Amino acid sequence: MSHINDTITALATPPGQGALGIIRVSGKQAISIVNELFKGKDLTQVDSHTIHLGTIRNDQNEIIDEVLVSIFKGPHSYTKEDVIEISSHGSPYILQKILSLLVTKGARLAKPGEFTQKAFLNGRFDLTQAEAVADLIASENAGMQQTAMKQMRGGFSDEIKNLREQLVHFASMIELELDFAEEDVEFADRHGLLDLIAKIQTLIQSLIASFEYGNVLKNGVPTVIAGKPNAGKSTLLNALLNEEKAIVSDVAGTTRDFIEDQIYLDGIAFRFIDTAGLRETDDKVESIGVQRTLEKMKLASLVLYLVDLENETIDSIADQVTELQASEAPFLIIGNKVDSGNSELMKWLGDRGDAIMISAKEKSNLDELKSRLKAFISIPTQSDVIVTNARHLQSLQQTDEALNRVIEGINMQMSNDLVAQDIRSSLFHLGEITGEVTTDDLLENIFSKFCIGK
Amino acid sequence: MSHINDTITALATPPGQGALGIIRVSGKQAISIVNELFKGKDLTQVDSHTIHLGTIRNDQNEIIDEVLVSIFKGPHSYTKEDVIEISSHGSPYILQKILSLLVTKGARLAKPGEFTQKAFLNGRFDLTQAEAVADLIASENAGMQQTAMKQMRGGFSDEIKNLREQLVHFASMIELELDFAEEDVEFADRHGLLDLIAKIQTLIQSLIASFEYGNVLKNGVPTVIAGKPNAGKSTLLNALLNEEKAIVSDVAGTTRDFIEDQIYLDGIAFRFIDTAGLRETDDKVESIGVQRTLEKMKLASLVLYLVDLENETIDSIADQVTELQASEAPFLIIGNKVDSGNSELMKWLGDRGDAIMISAKEKSNLDELKSRLKAFISIPTQSDVIVTNARHLQSLQQTDEALNRVIEGINMQMSNDLVAQDIRSSLFHLGEITGEVTTDDLLENIFSKFCIGK
Repeated sequence: MSHINDTITALATPPGQGALGIIRVSGKQAISIVNELFKGKDLTQVDSHTIHLGTIRNDQNEIIDEVLVSIFKGPHSYTKEDVIEISSHGSPYILQKILSLLVTKGARLAKPGEFTQKAFLNGRFDLTQAEAVADLIASENAGMQQTAMKQMRGGFSDEIKNLREQLVHFASMIELELDFAEEDVEFADRHGLLDLIAKIQTLIQSLIASFEYGNVLKNGVPTVIAGKPNAGKSTLLNALLNEEKAIVSDVAGTTRDFIEDQIYLDGIAFRFIDTAGLRETDDKVESIGVQRTLEKMKLASLVLYLVDLENETIDSIADQVTELQASEAPFLIIGNKVDSGNSELMKWLGDRGDAIMISAKEKSNLDELKSRLKAFISIPTQSDVIVTNARHLQSLQQTDEALNRVIEGINMQMSNDLVAQDIRSSLFHLGEITGEVTTDDLLENIFSKFCIGK
Repeated sequence: MSHINDTITALATPPGQGALGIIRVSGKQAISIVNELFKGKDLTQVDSHTIHLGTIRNDQNEIIDEVLVSIFKGPHSYTKEDVIEISSHGSPYILQKILSLLVTKGARLAKPGEFTQKAFLNGRFDLTQAEAVADLIASENAGMQQTAMKQMRGGFSDEIKNLREQLVHFASMIELELDFAEEDVEFADRHGLLDLIAKIQTLIQSLIASFEYGNVLKNGVPTVIAGKPNAGKSTLLNALLNEEKAIVSDVAGTTRDFIEDQIYLDGIAFRFIDTAGLRETDDKVESIGVQRTLEKMKLASLVLYLVDLENETIDSIADQVTELQASEAPFLIIGNKVDSGNSELMKWLGDRGDAIMISAKEKSNLDELKSRLKAFISIPTQSDVIVTNARHLQSLQQTDEALNRVIEGINMQMSNDLVAQDIRSSLFHLGEITGEVTTDDLLENIFSKFCIGK
């Protein structure tokens, strides 16, 4: 585990050349260590939240860079410790040199997420908020960003903490009863306890229900475009993607990470699985074989199944639909080449009621297709707070199960021993969410996924 | 050309995810524009060089991010205008969103180098200093960094400006004489002028002489490892590179851009040309043919020519040396496999005096080899200031030529018209260096090579 008393340092900006780069230092020695390298004002004498121009020099008094140094005095800083940010020219060489100098003066290179871990350990925020920081950095669309922002600013933490405290009270009452077991007293009001559990379970269940949407927000909807060769799969994909690209590339220099084989509809990413081959040629899909396409379908949350309205027959399409239904993947049948389509075929498909007719080439009816894609996602109407984290989901489910056992215990008038144990178990899982209960492994696992410098 | 009155904005940190990202805004409206988006303190009321925590919100009052905003009030800023830096979470999505919001409020996306161009146009520094900023960001070793730093902090600018001013004085005196041409007066002391020109030429020539070293500092020494198949070329390359890698990778996370096929000796990069194939297999070089190796040699400033001390004969080596001399490339003969070498061969090579014996496999005598590489570079002994910029070199040479014409004109007692014209020409080229004389094309050309956000 990390040593909370160490003074740590790391590059906080992405690697590579840029106009500027920021090195962060946090800990008891942060100011004195930087002060040893800095020529300018005496940093031990300046106010918090001020910026100072000066130079960083090595032991030979050579200037490594002209820098701006920002001072944040604990507890008014990200980590609640003294924090310094050194803003230098964005040369990887210079940044490395400054980091090396900081290390020679006594700072330690930070592990991934260690600044945020310090912030958590110093009580700046709870574990769900710390996790939201990583989600915020990884956010790629409005839905992810808004969800992470709400979680970072508190989200469901307060409500859970409040309910948990009330449950702690009942737990201690019941445990008190154990001390007086021979006297058959009842300190804990069983009706009050059941009411509280009902309240907790209502919250938990709505949070659990929000996860499906939260997961879709965070990870997108894996989507497969399937259909026979020459049904127009690659044309459809390009039509969907190209429109999107024109939208996302409007601010230069920032979109590098955005353009993939995915489109955003109402902030939800529809990710097209294994589309690389699709775009090159339809034939390739054929050569891979139907078997592999079916395997891909299993990975998909949604299959867009294209049929060629011009060249296929009703019988052939009926067979394909039967096969599709057998695969058990949710699917949407899309009749392509509507402009030159066989009218009987179109009538037959139209009568089915669940198909949509488009022309991928002419980009006609794509808006209708997009509406159908959006309709596929059920957006929770009530909850403002959405669970996006699989760890939270698991703890919520475990809490729910433990609470069910508590209810069962009370109703079946089981011994207080057993009821108390189940309450403790629910308290444990509830506490895991916000980090009131943690283990080193859990923290290690969470923060190791952060980027360096955060 | 850029409009100096625009308020400009750009991402100042490298693209991609990171712990944090910085957006820079500069111009008359910088503070008021950011203030419209920022919820926290009223930024129009805060002191310069202070940092403020708050949120950036869109028109729907949704929080885009929690940010730190740094205020620099002109003229105490990089551009001498009001500058704001917004430090947000390092999500490309969030950074793009904030940039878009700034644009909707009236900022314009900055062109590459436009912040530095503003700094130059507002008189913060001269053109050589502005150019040094880009060199500093691109610096990859101590030599480049120190040279760029000296140039950014003034370098030869003051001396050139001072001498140029004195020359301006003489120019106006001589032009005054033109007004009194009929009276045959002499306002400009010809001896004083010749003394000044001598002083200027001494400076210019030492700067011109420093360019060879400056160029080597900036661009490295293109080096080719050549020799017959199985002479041990790839083994030697790996021996040189591997040692280096162990040194440069000591601070994790920052070395991504460093590791290439080059080694640093005393801050000078020796870049091995086209070594990719070399490293895979010696045979490949053979298949490419001797002709292509000779072509590569022409690109090299130095050829390390390996001979196999174990398997070759004196006659064969003598032939190779003759060929090498014909190629006119500077070369160093390296006898490899010294441990199992033919003693006659070694004696013959040793008698030549300019060869060095090593074992690439055993890594023996590599230090001697490195000394020989370093000795190849002549380091200027006197000048503290080194010219690394080809544009400066050209202007210095043009100034020198114009001054030669002035001397010639005076000595040959040419008409004042012609002398005055040559002085004006030298003033023009001298002024180009520091930017006292500029054209839009020149500025466009210089700043377009900068990164965005600087």
